[in-house]
Amino acid sequence: MDVLVMLGSSSDLEKARPCVDTLKEFNIDYKLVIASAHRTPLLVEKNIKEAEKNGTKVIIAMAGLAAHLPGVIASKTLIPVIGVPLNARIGGLDALYSIVQMPKGFPVATVGIDISKNASLLAIQILALNDKTLKTKLKSFREKMASEVEKANKNL
Amino acid sequence: MDVLVMLGSSSDLEKARPCVDTLKEFNIDYKLVIASAHRTPLLVEKNIKEAEKNGTKVIIAMAGLAAHLPGVIASKTLIPVIGVPLNARIGGLDALYSIVQMPKGFPVATVGIDISKNASLLAIQILALNDKTLKTKLKSFREKMASEVEKANKNL
Amino acid sequence: MDVLVMLGSSSDLEKARPCVDTLKEFNIDYKLVIASAHRTPLLVEKNIKEAEKNGTKVIIAMAGLAAHLPGVIASKTLIPVIGVPLNARIGGLDALYSIVQMPKGFPVATVGIDISKNASLLAIQILALNDKTLKTKLKSFREKMASEVEKANKNL
Amino acid sequence: MDVLVMLGSSSDLEKARPCVDTLKEFNIDYKLVIASAHRTPLLVEKNIKEAEKNGTKVIIAMAGLAAHLPGVIASKTLIPVIGVPLNARIGGLDALYSIVQMPKGFPVATVGIDISKNASLLAIQILALNDKTLKTKLKSFREKMASEVEKANKNL
Amino acid sequence: MDVLVMLGSSSDLEKARPCVDTLKEFNIDYKLVIASAHRTPLLVEKNIKEAEKNGTKVIIAMAGLAAHLPGVIASKTLIPVIGVPLNARIGGLDALYSIVQMPKGFPVATVGIDISKNASLLAIQILALNDKTLKTKLKSFREKMASEVEKANKNL
Amino acid sequence: MDVLVMLGSSSDLEKARPCVDTLKEFNIDYKLVIASAHRTPLLVEKNIKEAEKNGTKVIIAMAGLAAHLPGVIASKTLIPVIGVPLNARIGGLDALYSIVQMPKGFPVATVGIDISKNASLLAIQILALNDKTLKTKLKSFREKMASEVEKANKNL
Amino acid sequence: MDVLVMLGSSSDLEKARPCVDTLKEFNIDYKLVIASAHRTPLLVEKNIKEAEKNGTKVIIAMAGLAAHLPGVIASKTLIPVIGVPLNARIGGLDALYSIVQMPKGFPVATVGIDISKNASLLAIQILALNDKTLKTKLKSFREKMASEVEKANKNL
Amino acid sequence: MDVLVMLGSSSDLEKARPCVDTLKEFNIDYKLVIASAHRTPLLVEKNIKEAEKNGTKVIIAMAGLAAHLPGVIASKTLIPVIGVPLNARIGGLDALYSIVQMPKGFPVATVGIDISKNASLLAIQILALNDKTLKTKLKSFREKMASEVEKANKNL
Repeated sequence: MDVLVMLGSSSDLEKARPCVDTLKEFNIDYKLVIASAHRTPLLVEKNIKEAEKNGTKVIIAMAGLAAHLPGVIASKTLIPVIGVPLNARIGGLDALYSIVQMPKGFPVATVGIDISKNASLLAIQILALNDKTLKTKLKSFREKMASEVEKANKNL
Repeated sequence: MDVLVMLGSSSDLEKARPCVDTLKEFNIDYKLVIASAHRTPLLVEKNIKEAEKNGTKVIIAMAGLAAHLPGVIASKTLIPVIGVPLNARIGGLDALYSIVQMPKGFPVATVGIDISKNASLLAIQILALNDKTLKTKLKSFREKMASEVEKANKNL
Repeated sequence: MDVLVMLGSSSDLEKARPCVDTLKEFNIDYKLVIASAHRTPLLVEKNIKEAEKNGTKVIIAMAGLAAHLPGVIASKTLIPVIGVPLNARIGGLDALYSIVQMPKGFPVATVGIDISKNASLLAIQILALNDKTLKTKLKSFREKMASEVEKANKNL
Repeated sequence: MDVLVMLGSSSDLEKARPCVDTLKEFNIDYKLVIASAHRTPLLVEKNIKEAEKNGTKVIIAMAGLAAHLPGVIASKTLIPVIGVPLNARIGGLDALYSIVQMPKGFPVATVGIDISKNASLLAIQILALNDKTLKTKLKSFREKMASEVEKANKNL
Repeated sequence: MDVLVMLGSSSDLEKARPCVDTLKEFNIDYKLVIASAHRTPLLVEKNIKEAEKNGTKVIIAMAGLAAHLPGVIASKTLIPVIGVPLNARIGGLDALYSIVQMPKGFPVATVGIDISKNASLLAIQILALNDKTLKTKLKSFREKMASEVEKANKNL
Repeated sequence: MDVLVMLGSSSDLEKARPCVDTLKEFNIDYKLVIASAHRTPLLVEKNIKEAEKNGTKVIIAMAGLAAHLPGVIASKTLIPVIGVPLNARIGGLDALYSIVQMPKGFPVATVGIDISKNASLLAIQILALNDKTLKTKLKSFREKMASEVEKANKNL
Repeated sequence: MDVLVMLGSSSDLEKARPCVDTLKEFNIDYKLVIASAHRTPLLVEKNIKEAEKNGTKVIIAMAGLAAHLPGVIASKTLIPVIGVPLNARIGGLDALYSIVQMPKGFPVATVGIDISKNASLLAIQILALNDKTLKTKLKSFREKMASEVEKANKNL
Repeated sequence: MDVLVMLGSSSDLEKARPCVDTLKEFNIDYKLVIASAHRTPLLVEKNIKEAEKNGTKVIIAMAGLAAHLPGVIASKTLIPVIGVPLNARIGGLDALYSIVQMPKGFPVATVGIDISKNASLLAIQILALNDKTLKTKLKSFREKMASEVEKANKNL
């Protein structure tokens, strides 16, 4: 398993979809788990341990409100953690600040509010550091994004 | 020990003083510990366990930035947890949201930014539910606050 | 009566439901009252007095906008007051700041915006300090929340 | 007494000075009182009663943090209440929202954060509705402000 | 005409209704005008002049976005101006700050975002300073608000 | 006169300096005036009229708090208006929103909070549309900025 | 081509319509292009180069989220750039700050959130500096806006 | 070179120090460059190209205000980019939103405002995925952080 995706709640599944779909699209070996920092801290720890044993390279964690999950994971492993703040209240600023403002020593690589797709792409970029095939796929992905812009211009 | 006070960092000691001084003033049996949710999760857990054994009635936790400490404690015990958001960046709004916006199931009794004195008073109000002497002291304390206003008016 | 729940307006009844339902679920002896700090200050005071006579342990107060109700109650009693900020404008930040930023001397135990369920759970945690049955129920409640996460994982 | 000025705390005296000085400059019959909505609610009520007896036309109230004072006064009298939010935390936004966002039925005439001078000028404009001398003075005051701009241009 | 109500745009008519309805309910002699500070500055000035001639006691001005209307009116007359910030973007904070943060010398009596009813009530309180009948009506109005709370309690 | 610079207050002179210095550095024919939208509306209008007669190409306006000056000018002329929000309270957000959020029909070209230098550069870019010498100077100016970066790298 | 309009994404087309419609209404020679600062930087540069060759006078750029497009364009040309922040998250404050807070040297003339019509009007005001017919049209446009206010008053 | 650190301005050097010092402490092969997205886009591109040739694993970029640098870099390379928002205005929220809110396709791994040390630690965690010595050092680093907490407790 290269990427572990943890959601704070089953109600976040819809918002996680762009992340998961992208991991699939790139044929990443990933695992999706619902595990709450507060409701199931042991499940969180169990999954981290398992990830470390399995040589997981990146953990993606998503949560809303006082979103402690990414930071709590980051404090329990040296695997890089990517955090996705989810909007449940006040535009998601509570989740953003709870994730990005981690104190010295425990960084969480934070991406934009509800933009879970970027979490998967960031994970894939890290994996691609040692995987030329992935790197080539990422290049094609970006070229496709660019060509969609050109198509849109033709339809103006 | 009736009240356990946990600080996320030794740099928060100055801001904790009004809390600690008030606990002393009311002769509360308290313990002050520095324990970080991220740097020393085991120390946090150890202190919670100890608090539960000792019949501690309230845990006060203070932290700045992505202030996870109060919420993490709240998820590991049924003892009521009071959280004090400390201002380190953006006026303390990061800490406030990280503490108060806890998801369903794990309340943190949050007080104002940097107003640690209110954490101790809230703890004492909880203790006073079963302690008439404390209640009397709290009444005097409030009367003293009121009389200071009257003094201030005389000095106008 | 162990818990008094005060709403600033009858229009807040819907948002109070998770709080009230939880109090019922735990068989708490509670009373629900609509009483506005501004429209019916005497009704507020009358209920506080009654609560004090009846040995009420916690007062929960909910309000939106410039939400003075929890703070006003807190200034008139030594019973611990839990405040729930309700979102009517600007994401509920007006109510949050009006409740949590209480000046020194009059703490309000603030929970998250519109998360009234946490107010009831916090109240129950305070009651459980002297009630082992309640404590056991709270443990089961948390275990149930944890097991729901595990169920959700099976349905992935 | 035409104007009653209430401060939430003696520590606000410095910020009240531009207000008080302007009232003096316009020879307004005013009274300055320190009276906290939370610490001395009875003193607040006593002063309101007295103001009503004395035919007071405007009450100015200043407070910081969860600034309940202006709204609490507004709920207890039909005399127009002017509120001045004072900056103690987060730029004074807590005080601003606590004062201006009053629910339907109890308006507070709010002026800018820490701009207590505008509270006095607004009070004087209300008094001037029935006082031609005051109106003339206000006109001169505005002309003086305008002429200061012209002076400043000469010094460029 | 005792009260002049100015709206920055015809699209604000719906939000002005609670204000206008209350003025009607209290039999206030008022005039409603649409006049934009930017599109029709002369119309604004014309109405101010007319108001001054007619002995108007209060001007209510409502606007959204960069809501200059209330402040611009305040700078052109000594009649007290009440401003109502309307929410068109970012929760109405742009309008709130554009209205309440007036510089020294030109106060605008600001009420809550979209709470136009409070503007009319504040105006009526000012008028009631010299009108006992109005004062009595205001008292009844408040008593009615209070009795509605009591009714709501019976329906619980 | 090609550029008219209007300040809301003489206290803003220090913050206007980078703007004025840049206009001088580029030999722009400019005029600096202190003219408040509220205190001296006639002076504002007089300067606008004069600017229109003199073929002024850009008006730069700076103000803090509820910064109406740029928008008020924009409503009275077709000359492009550049607005500079100045920080006096809450980080300058009040001035930013009061300037940038202009309603449809009356744009103000807003630059960053307290970044008056960008107002002058934007004005010069507009003037340079019809002035090749200015365009050449702007190019050199940008090259100089770039070369300073390279110098800074050598000093690392 | 006098005005180049660049959108960061084809999903912004709807919000660009008021801008484009106004350019058409004023018979401006314009070009609309979708070009993303991140997905198609070369397309952005190609369009800037083309604009410079064609004597384009103004570039309008719209984008949401971390809206880099206007600032990136501004850094690559001396043609004045007008930026329109689009609301995709947190009320559009992310886009507003990403556009308006440009560092010294590279101004972007920012207009209100989602108010793309003002971008076209500002562009037309700049073009009108050298085009009397346009200036006359702008005057009529403003007069029409004013007369609509008067019509609205008749319909009250 | 394993890590490339780019600063938007030489004035950011002080804030970059904790990042650079940590890279040194871990014996990381890094390069520090000042390169502005707006002033020196070619220098930015040159350094990215060089980084790609040299097998650089992570690029750290820091900037304040409308902080485009991290996002612009992220759009030009597949190397993971870590962004550090620097506080120059409004508490650094402008920089935070400009960095973290990147649109789909171009993630920037954002850390807390002014917390440049976390950028270096995140980079080292990524490098440690393929470097056991680094991993061991990181473990010691965390243990040292934990032991400092314990020391602090002894000094209480």
